[in-house]
Amino acid sequence: MMKVIKAGILGATGYTGIELLRLLQQHPAVTVAHAFTESHVGQPIPHIYPHLQQQTSLIGEQFSPTLAADCDVLFMALPHGHAIDIVPPLLAQGKKVIDLGADFRLKSADDYQHWYQTTPASASLLQQAVYGLPEAGYRAAIQQATLLANPGCYPTASILAALPAFAAGIISPSDCIFDAKSGLSGAGRKLALQSHYGEVAENFSPYQVGGIHRHTPEIEQALTAIAQQPITIQFTPHLVPMVRGLSVTAYFKLNTLLTQQAVHAIYQQAYQDEPFIRLYTTTHTNPQTKQVRGTNFCDISVHVDTRTQRLIVISAIDNLLKGAAGQAIQNMNIMFQLPETTGLQNGGGIYP
Amino acid sequence: MMKVIKAGILGATGYTGIELLRLLQQHPAVTVAHAFTESHVGQPIPHIYPHLQQQTSLIGEQFSPTLAADCDVLFMALPHGHAIDIVPPLLAQGKKVIDLGADFRLKSADDYQHWYQTTPASASLLQQAVYGLPEAGYRAAIQQATLLANPGCYPTASILAALPAFAAGIISPSDCIFDAKSGLSGAGRKLALQSHYGEVAENFSPYQVGGIHRHTPEIEQALTAIAQQPITIQFTPHLVPMVRGLSVTAYFKLNTLLTQQAVHAIYQQAYQDEPFIRLYTTTHTNPQTKQVRGTNFCDISVHVDTRTQRLIVISAIDNLLKGAAGQAIQNMNIMFQLPETTGLQNGGGIYP
Amino acid sequence: MMKVIKAGILGATGYTGIELLRLLQQHPAVTVAHAFTESHVGQPIPHIYPHLQQQTSLIGEQFSPTLAADCDVLFMALPHGHAIDIVPPLLAQGKKVIDLGADFRLKSADDYQHWYQTTPASASLLQQAVYGLPEAGYRAAIQQATLLANPGCYPTASILAALPAFAAGIISPSDCIFDAKSGLSGAGRKLALQSHYGEVAENFSPYQVGGIHRHTPEIEQALTAIAQQPITIQFTPHLVPMVRGLSVTAYFKLNTLLTQQAVHAIYQQAYQDEPFIRLYTTTHTNPQTKQVRGTNFCDISVHVDTRTQRLIVISAIDNLLKGAAGQAIQNMNIMFQLPETTGLQNGGGIYP
Amino acid sequence: MMKVIKAGILGATGYTGIELLRLLQQHPAVTVAHAFTESHVGQPIPHIYPHLQQQTSLIGEQFSPTLAADCDVLFMALPHGHAIDIVPPLLAQGKKVIDLGADFRLKSADDYQHWYQTTPASASLLQQAVYGLPEAGYRAAIQQATLLANPGCYPTASILAALPAFAAGIISPSDCIFDAKSGLSGAGRKLALQSHYGEVAENFSPYQVGGIHRHTPEIEQALTAIAQQPITIQFTPHLVPMVRGLSVTAYFKLNTLLTQQAVHAIYQQAYQDEPFIRLYTTTHTNPQTKQVRGTNFCDISVHVDTRTQRLIVISAIDNLLKGAAGQAIQNMNIMFQLPETTGLQNGGGIYP
Repeated sequence: MMKVIKAGILGATGYTGIELLRLLQQHPAVTVAHAFTESHVGQPIPHIYPHLQQQTSLIGEQFSPTLAADCDVLFMALPHGHAIDIVPPLLAQGKKVIDLGADFRLKSADDYQHWYQTTPASASLLQQAVYGLPEAGYRAAIQQATLLANPGCYPTASILAALPAFAAGIISPSDCIFDAKSGLSGAGRKLALQSHYGEVAENFSPYQVGGIHRHTPEIEQALTAIAQQPITIQFTPHLVPMVRGLSVTAYFKLNTLLTQQAVHAIYQQAYQDEPFIRLYTTTHTNPQTKQVRGTNFCDISVHVDTRTQRLIVISAIDNLLKGAAGQAIQNMNIMFQLPETTGLQNGGGIYP
Repeated sequence: MMKVIKAGILGATGYTGIELLRLLQQHPAVTVAHAFTESHVGQPIPHIYPHLQQQTSLIGEQFSPTLAADCDVLFMALPHGHAIDIVPPLLAQGKKVIDLGADFRLKSADDYQHWYQTTPASASLLQQAVYGLPEAGYRAAIQQATLLANPGCYPTASILAALPAFAAGIISPSDCIFDAKSGLSGAGRKLALQSHYGEVAENFSPYQVGGIHRHTPEIEQALTAIAQQPITIQFTPHLVPMVRGLSVTAYFKLNTLLTQQAVHAIYQQAYQDEPFIRLYTTTHTNPQTKQVRGTNFCDISVHVDTRTQRLIVISAIDNLLKGAAGQAIQNMNIMFQLPETTGLQNGGGIYP
Repeated sequence: MMKVIKAGILGATGYTGIELLRLLQQHPAVTVAHAFTESHVGQPIPHIYPHLQQQTSLIGEQFSPTLAADCDVLFMALPHGHAIDIVPPLLAQGKKVIDLGADFRLKSADDYQHWYQTTPASASLLQQAVYGLPEAGYRAAIQQATLLANPGCYPTASILAALPAFAAGIISPSDCIFDAKSGLSGAGRKLALQSHYGEVAENFSPYQVGGIHRHTPEIEQALTAIAQQPITIQFTPHLVPMVRGLSVTAYFKLNTLLTQQAVHAIYQQAYQDEPFIRLYTTTHTNPQTKQVRGTNFCDISVHVDTRTQRLIVISAIDNLLKGAAGQAIQNMNIMFQLPETTGLQNGGGIYP
Repeated sequence: MMKVIKAGILGATGYTGIELLRLLQQHPAVTVAHAFTESHVGQPIPHIYPHLQQQTSLIGEQFSPTLAADCDVLFMALPHGHAIDIVPPLLAQGKKVIDLGADFRLKSADDYQHWYQTTPASASLLQQAVYGLPEAGYRAAIQQATLLANPGCYPTASILAALPAFAAGIISPSDCIFDAKSGLSGAGRKLALQSHYGEVAENFSPYQVGGIHRHTPEIEQALTAIAQQPITIQFTPHLVPMVRGLSVTAYFKLNTLLTQQAVHAIYQQAYQDEPFIRLYTTTHTNPQTKQVRGTNFCDISVHVDTRTQRLIVISAIDNLLKGAAGQAIQNMNIMFQLPETTGLQNGGGIYP
């Protein structure tokens, strides 16, 4: 494959940005032309991240549209709110933009305003943006997309756990709980007490309890589209003392009691052609985060409890891959008509 | 305080047993007379657990009723099924018995048979046993108990999260989910692949998904007694890459929408005199497992989500203290008419 | 024991300060009168450290000599350089001062200037200060001390590993290497990339390699006093992905080849009356940091390699106890003529 | 590249074996024909290691020379002693053999007998075996090798730390200490108390202290060859609470005091053409294990301490890559005249 795509990364020196850089450097069709950064301008990337010694000679650059002019695609790995003003000129230049932040994920400007407490992007931009979850029926739209809103890590694992059940109409729309657990890299490299080793190690920590986490409306928007009726969810995030990995335990109420086999068949059919979803065949084993670490897979298992008539679904992803950088590359592959798994087949991650 | 109580520990060289030993050695009213063990007979305890060098001169002994004759109380820290035959002769000798296993927790022999797949204790023994959760209204019975069934770690954190809400009748009996997360010491010191460092570290692992974990009927039995109507729950356990700590996120449906303040007041009133329950006063902070590590506290926070009309409760305990050895000592204190916190006031655990 | 000693802590909200607070609250002879802090003035301590809920009602206060007037002893848990100006007025008030920082450890003002790159305390103050390592022959001086310089964590474990060998004159003065490994709490609660969870977890990290760490002259000063000849050492610190614990592997050259038994006997004799040193009796087991966690013990094992004529000594401490707060309380006990172990007998820490 | 090499793995279901399998599956010139195992015969590999779902359809097979007949190369990832009888028939069949165990590393049968306490391979086999450390001058021999003895993890990191200094004759032959620290995966997947999560987490643990670890003679043999005079070393291993990674702090005595620049230049020259060695250019940063995790790199930094006239060298590897499976593939590449880095360029491992 030829290196035909030139890419730039904004926010290249955060955990998501540097993972994008690492993966894109190995991508057979991509050259990373620019590593844009606010905090490390002028520094060679391997000085900031020594694991990349001899892997890249890029130097951190201050972003400017002029420098971006030689890029075909720009990846935005920025805090929310930061992409809103940067994107329109890039689109006007004819660039494709993949935003890994939250700025273009919600179709409703009011929802964005309410949950993020900052000014939303223009309504036209919000409408233009395509939600980048290929498995949720967006693949055709992604192929045409110029502005792609890459899903959040929690929404990716939550939506994929619920999708076949809502699509098949087998679960109640009002009884939908996502109990989610994430490793610390999801909180980024920014210094904060909640990411301090002494506070995190040997600790399990719920946060944003009570339905107040910003990923709630994103999940509801996607599930409402799939179920074709309004879905209200309960979402609770927790921090796990590990670096990578995100696990969701989803609780649904079955409309009628189905067998384990019947539900499994529904999931099997929904996901059989998906290259990045691995459905577990037995109820005895469940996805563990370590089994997807370093990969773009979402592992899923389904469990019917006949006592309670509930469907419980476990999903697991690497929050920096399928939950961020990996999914962004999957989307880029679709946008550029490349095979969807290009550059993402790494043979099973790293274990143990 | 004088050392008036002589205690023996069966299963002294497991993680629960050795924690009992450590705590009882510091207890002002207790002398540990015997450390009974199957696996390390004849070995000095500090050879097995070097952290106890100069803390104990006990030597592992093979259990026999004769050796136990000089004890006032026997603690059983054994795998399930093992206590059933050992206990009756001890009771006949006039000993008090505190069983930290599951053999006397369920009142229904059928339930025990069904969930544990082994022969239950006699019905009379099951009736005689007092469930040792003082906060759940059993304090008076514990004072009179000769056979005490110490609650499991998951049930302790789950029941304490639900108790005031069920007692006050504010939540639905059929909509009750406990998503529970435990550190690895809950699985004991026995060698197993699921406790192997390479498998556990950097991994989050659901298990027994689908309502099949044995602690389910124990929680239902206790909540049914509190609610005075049949309660069916959903319980899912997970393993967290940490040694100690157990956290429950409990989801309930409010019968009518109450304010955060109203629910907090109900919990406050229920627990205001409890020495080992700390109720969080704000919704912004939640119990983290590290904040109870090495203590007998159960930390609790309550969160009303007005969007979903759900009550979400977070509880956290140290699985080896309030979830096992600490609670056993709390029960022993009550059984021997000692102040309930004797030997358990250690000033806030160990942090960080 | 009566609560006869009133104590104040400066820097109470750092990891060392809060550990002092936790331990002193449990000390039978001490009342903590003030928790002084720069960063959290006006905040209840349990808001900053929730593990201390219901354990203390202290509120963070801005330090002033006036507030300190009701204290008998002040503990300084401050960054180096900060104690120098604060201490003299306190001494003039007749207070006892225990400094857990580096400001009074080195007798040579030039050495302090050279290694810490800041202005040293006055020569008279440096002479007045007593080095608080009781096991190293300072016990009598500590009893009389008004200004006590509490040793660093690395020096404590290093000096105790070397002391009997140098005192007995069995090892070469010029061939002395301390390879030291510490948990992250030694770096404090201050936010820094080196303490960020994503950087620390699953990582082992040497630092200050090449004989440039500031604890080097402190170790040399103590060993020179013990050996009564100039000792130059090699010291290399490393960070281990754990919170607490400090381990030293010390390499010495035996002047003449001694047997394992002979060397062990020398260490045995040197430490037989020391309440906080546990000497391992076999060469098959070695001190592990977890076995001293939460205790004031220093565990030590000695190993003669006849092939190389080297003596290798392993020592392990909890860096926040024997390496900081615990040792400070041990020193306070000596200064106030209390039994040396008062408030420090906690039955073997916390394991696992 | 065509898949021209057929490989078999003995001991495929241990941590080293499965890492070999994962890496070889991605290797452009290799097909893995057989995954031989004692413990999991008949089980699909992804049942044993779910991270390999959809990555391999291999099923665990009982080894037999007949089954191995279609292989070009056999990798032996077995406990020591197990390869000795298996290898000769394979060589007789014309297979190339790469042994990742210790059975063919030592040239002296007496040394093997002494350190491993079991019967050595025949003298002719020991002579035939080529030590597979390409950077140590064995590259030409490896090209011709039919039986390759892949170095141990500790020896790899230790020898590479010392090699340029001994080759240049700048350090004393009798003053050579390797203080080594390894993650737990080095101890394999076999259940053992030393690998139990509760024992390992939050613990740092020296072992085999006093010059008794079996890797000692392997290091001495290699360094003696390089230095062309007898080298006796001091080697001490330690366990770090992490899964992957191995770090060595090596202490040497400079024959004459050289500058930092001079020593760095010697290392630079020695390693400038080595594709898997990254020499750090400043003394301020040192190799950390996380920066080589998932890669075949050995990162090295050198530090001259002018006070002590010592050279201190830090080296870091991933014990399962450059310390085992990665180096084995590097050797296979050389043996099959492939570019040395084939299949081992993965873009910088996985970080954080």
